Amino acid sequence: MSEAGQGETHRFRFPVRVYYEDTDAAGVVYYANYLRYLERARTEWLRALGFEQAELARRLGVAFAVRSLTVNFLKPARLDDALDVVAAVASLGRVQLVFGQEVRRGAEVLVTAQVQVVCVDAVRMKPAPLPAEIRQRFEELS
Amino acid sequence: MSEAGQGETHRFRFPVRVYYEDTDAAGVVYYANYLRYLERARTEWLRALGFEQAELARRLGVAFAVRSLTVNFLKPARLDDALDVVAAVASLGRVQLVFGQEVRRGAEVLVTAQVQVVCVDAVRMKPAPLPAEIRQRFEELS
Amino acid sequence: MSEAGQGETHRFRFPVRVYYEDTDAAGVVYYANYLRYLERARTEWLRALGFEQAELARRLGVAFAVRSLTVNFLKPARLDDALDVVAAVASLGRVQLVFGQEVRRGAEVLVTAQVQVVCVDAVRMKPAPLPAEIRQRFEELS
Amino acid sequence: MSEAGQGETHRFRFPVRVYYEDTDAAGVVYYANYLRYLERARTEWLRALGFEQAELARRLGVAFAVRSLTVNFLKPARLDDALDVVAAVASLGRVQLVFGQEVRRGAEVLVTAQVQVVCVDAVRMKPAPLPAEIRQRFEELS
Repeated sequence: MSEAGQGETHRFRFPVRVYYEDTDAAGVVYYANYLRYLERARTEWLRALGFEQAELARRLGVAFAVRSLTVNFLKPARLDDALDVVAAVASLGRVQLVFGQEVRRGAEVLVTAQVQVVCVDAVRMKPAPLPAEIRQRFEELS
Repeated sequence: MSEAGQGETHRFRFPVRVYYEDTDAAGVVYYANYLRYLERARTEWLRALGFEQAELARRLGVAFAVRSLTVNFLKPARLDDALDVVAAVASLGRVQLVFGQEVRRGAEVLVTAQVQVVCVDAVRMKPAPLPAEIRQRFEELS
Repeated sequence: MSEAGQGETHRFRFPVRVYYEDTDAAGVVYYANYLRYLERARTEWLRALGFEQAELARRLGVAFAVRSLTVNFLKPARLDDALDVVAAVASLGRVQLVFGQEVRRGAEVLVTAQVQVVCVDAVRMKPAPLPAEIRQRFEELS
Repeated sequence: MSEAGQGETHRFRFPVRVYYEDTDAAGVVYYANYLRYLERARTEWLRALGFEQAELARRLGVAFAVRSLTVNFLKPARLDDALDVVAAVASLGRVQLVFGQEVRRGAEVLVTAQVQVVCVDAVRMKPAPLPAEIRQRFEELS
């Protein structure tokens, strides 16, 4: 996964099924809905590392906000497709994380994305340092 | 509009356009998305009466929650359709409002709905009396 | 599950996780999104019985359309909740199926629904007899 | 609007209201939903130029597919906000159009985006030349 850059050593993979709710009248997944899939994989990765977002907001007062993204839509996904959404950490900063992500159908890569996520104060929505315990868990992976 | 009951004297009408985002792979509007249309009309009616929901939550600490609904899907709406969403008050109680609603395409009725909305405390999500100023505005209509 | 009526002997249960995409600014799952959950469970039940909807449209020229529904929203679901969506067949007709459904969080029932689904010709969207092979599989369950 | 590049001489502006359906539990518009707003403005621009997408698919057998996008999320939009979505043509090729877009709240720019759209055969979803009548209308604007 080229988005994920050089030093990448760990990936997370999350299965997603395509339902009617995800498709549009062109018979394919509506373009905005891939962003939902990408976020489910990032969320499940955090959960697998021991962090739930509702609990992070309550306990540490932080949330994650997407600051920018680039997405390439290579091939369409269709109703009933069984997809995999892949995530890797491309870079880890003091307040931000950049994820390289893909949506795949078996060996086919349908969508590639680079997603810049910043840690924010959950009330004021202003940038805040990434909590040490989260940073540490991601550093342990690489 | 039979849902709106006997004493109904006032209706609100709000136009909605069908975009790709609203449709599904069957080529029609996805069934859950009509509930979005229904809510837009209720929200715009409140706004036309002078009430914005974000402001109601801040100033009076109340929000509206849908408690139950019945929907009949008679004919499908399609991409690019120009629809009208109609709302009338079927009954007005101490904590609840029942709306009779329709989604129309010109003279055709596509969807009919009866939607029971309760006023809730915006923090605890527990039933709360409908604010007097809102009740009064709806009573003035009938 | 009272919606499912007397003779019910079989239920299908499907897990759903609540993501940010499902919630709204009131901090709870947006009311229309429960309809997505309900449909995922019906779709996965069909799949578990051997029927995929895209394949049914191609092979038999039929699709399923929701004709009416009644939903009661009892308690709100929130971000990160692990829910179960339950479905049972309440009645099985020549062209229609009525499902009794629930959204549960552990032992708590959050939402109950009765959903009338009709089999339609996938092109003209007009009622069509339920394919014998599908009827048979549902009859075997009860 | 810097995305729209040098020679830009025409912009289209479309108003969008933020409803509960658009927001998430962080109290702001969910990031994927800005892509819906961006598409509504592109669709309404086409409509204002005389082209409806359902009709284009039937008459000319073409559709538009987003091939890639870059989005910067600068400030969050919130419930009840009255937004403007702006679109300009940054480049016009044989099969593709690149739009520079913004989501604004009054003078504030909340989101900027560059969206590459390709014309496709509506059945096979393969690239197809932009119909001459559409190209001509966009060229007349600049």
